[in-house]
Amino acid sequence: MKNETITAPQGFLAAGLACGIKVSGKTDIALLSCPTGATAGAVFTTNKIVSAAVHVCRDHLSSRKVYGVVVNSGNANACTGKKGLTSAKKMCAVAATEIKAEPEQVLVASTGIIGEQLPVKKATDGIAQAAAQLSDSPEAGLAFAQAIMTTDTKAKQAVRQIWISGEQVTIAGTVKGAGMIGPNMATTLLFITTDASIGKPLLTAALSEAVGNSLNKLTVDGHQSTNDTAIILASGLASKHLIIGPCPRYRKFAGALAELCSDLAHQMALDAEGATRMFKVVVTGAATRSEAAKAARAVADYPLVKCAVHGGDPNWGRIICAVGSCGVKLNPDKLSCKLDDLYVFKKGAPARFDAAKASAIVSKTEHTITVDLDAGKAADFCYGCDLTAEYVHINADYHT
Amino acid sequence: MKNETITAPQGFLAAGLACGIKVSGKTDIALLSCPTGATAGAVFTTNKIVSAAVHVCRDHLSSRKVYGVVVNSGNANACTGKKGLTSAKKMCAVAATEIKAEPEQVLVASTGIIGEQLPVKKATDGIAQAAAQLSDSPEAGLAFAQAIMTTDTKAKQAVRQIWISGEQVTIAGTVKGAGMIGPNMATTLLFITTDASIGKPLLTAALSEAVGNSLNKLTVDGHQSTNDTAIILASGLASKHLIIGPCPRYRKFAGALAELCSDLAHQMALDAEGATRMFKVVVTGAATRSEAAKAARAVADYPLVKCAVHGGDPNWGRIICAVGSCGVKLNPDKLSCKLDDLYVFKKGAPARFDAAKASAIVSKTEHTITVDLDAGKAADFCYGCDLTAEYVHINADYHT
Repeated sequence: MKNETITAPQGFLAAGLACGIKVSGKTDIALLSCPTGATAGAVFTTNKIVSAAVHVCRDHLSSRKVYGVVVNSGNANACTGKKGLTSAKKMCAVAATEIKAEPEQVLVASTGIIGEQLPVKKATDGIAQAAAQLSDSPEAGLAFAQAIMTTDTKAKQAVRQIWISGEQVTIAGTVKGAGMIGPNMATTLLFITTDASIGKPLLTAALSEAVGNSLNKLTVDGHQSTNDTAIILASGLASKHLIIGPCPRYRKFAGALAELCSDLAHQMALDAEGATRMFKVVVTGAATRSEAAKAARAVADYPLVKCAVHGGDPNWGRIICAVGSCGVKLNPDKLSCKLDDLYVFKKGAPARFDAAKASAIVSKTEHTITVDLDAGKAADFCYGCDLTAEYVHINADYHT
Repeated sequence: MKNETITAPQGFLAAGLACGIKVSGKTDIALLSCPTGATAGAVFTTNKIVSAAVHVCRDHLSSRKVYGVVVNSGNANACTGKKGLTSAKKMCAVAATEIKAEPEQVLVASTGIIGEQLPVKKATDGIAQAAAQLSDSPEAGLAFAQAIMTTDTKAKQAVRQIWISGEQVTIAGTVKGAGMIGPNMATTLLFITTDASIGKPLLTAALSEAVGNSLNKLTVDGHQSTNDTAIILASGLASKHLIIGPCPRYRKFAGALAELCSDLAHQMALDAEGATRMFKVVVTGAATRSEAAKAARAVADYPLVKCAVHGGDPNWGRIICAVGSCGVKLNPDKLSCKLDDLYVFKKGAPARFDAAKASAIVSKTEHTITVDLDAGKAADFCYGCDLTAEYVHINADYHT
């Protein structure tokens, strides 16, 4: 494909530029437009404190069609009270004027430092300038993807093309997020465009399911932010036939969307703040799926496991310790643990294994930790990454 | 006082030496003896996977009197199956022979790497050697305190003297622990001696209460280990009158014990792995005390808060984010946050404050973060420490 950005599906224009919110001078305003109007679905953070943008989006999602999304990076506009809410609404209003829509037909997202008022004049000037640059070129799509970044080191984009009833449909997405990522809507900001023709309830269902099995399975530091937002816009331009029920056409679309989100989650894990390695934690033999998920996350979030992975150290005792202290049902006498296919702990006792082989597994860019709890038949998984001195440096120096 | 170690109370002898469990050659066997026999109380980890020593201690605590405690560092003897259990019992048996007691009258504790079999011959040879060196000198007490250390950079000891009904009673303690510390029995290993005369149920109650309000309020990396053990031995030699009920004499004893444990918790926080600063999180206005404790811990455990403290950065948005995502009841429109006495967020909106003053507060060796949830009248607190590159280095390189 020539275009692997969010402007790849038919009907979308994008722009991204610097308006001065970030002191670094990097790009910090992104605008996405769908001139013919799009069906929109979204999922948000479950944090009880949410950004002004999340408040506004929840309201605007009742519009039948959405014509644009405006995003700023460098300032989260969260914990900013009524003034912050006014700023977020102003962003939508200015974008609406520029793209000839109503303010309620524009969605908004913010990311960056929490608790500082948004420099709203800079943002709105930036939006006007971005509107003049809107284009369906790959360059414009990339500019959007870059302008939503904070501590990300690279733009994260993915695209999928599928055939549905003889019609070629494209789905494209971009995500930002490198820290403050925990399961339960752990996407920070995710924007997906598609030219599929699909009703709003199904679009939202497909998005929730896709995010649930991808970005929500990723933990960098165990917390969800105040701003997490995933938005999907469907222009419908590639297809004459509306997907309205859970038919095979829907499943094909939902499958491709899930794949796209997994691809983006994978890119996020490898670009997590300071991370040099990622790992998958699979928990089997759990009493329930939610207990399996809880145990997997306990391992992936445990600083001592994350440090051991960083050191390429098969210190599996820390894995067992994390599982034992997270409160799930387990059988201590039958518990087992594998690093990839290598047993390190089997039925409650240390396994004999080649230490060099174990170190080699843990030193890979990606490996899988499997823990069997011997307490039932449920399983689940989670992705994590190593904890490095670089993570500390990034986060000790982010504010000042 | 001339002696500020666990041999300060009447009736206790101690020793500590190197037996070769640690490859570094540092001391790794500690022995405590009470020739007249002591009343013993203990609390253990709530991790579902516990060390062999914890299993053995739980059994041996049914003895009416305890005559000794043997401890090894450098090997946790956890996740070691039946062989590990045999090793722990052997440690007690050898110590018992040396100090002329029954194996069931000796308690045992281990700390160090999880999942490797204890070199039991080295340990038992060390115990025999330590028995020959038992002494009530301050040097012997210090040797004990040093021999239980792992990544601790200094021995942590405290002593209190009180008058109860005209009799002078001494309580002394030593604790080890620098990582793998989370509330809920977050002590790793704690040993307390006293010459007070007190019945077993009250002794255990006083210990539980003291640990609950001190060491259990400290979080370094949010996890409790497989080995956490707190043991108190009371020789009764300083007092003719047994404390048997919750009388003023009991409250005086329990108060001094609580103070001693707080002192030790404080020393632990400042010696946490790689830590350069500590902070106290106070949560007020919670619906229940357990919700207050949950929110305080969420803040103290949040890597981004810990990094910000390390950077001396008053990035209070991360505090609000942690509180919002931990699931407790709160009122977003009335939430407030202070750094010491400085409001940074007041009733749902950013407060105007002097940034330099805020940075100065966060840059202190100790400061207090207060969050008011405006959801009730309950309060609780927690201690945390900063997250540093040094923590990562220590824990990426510990095993190999």
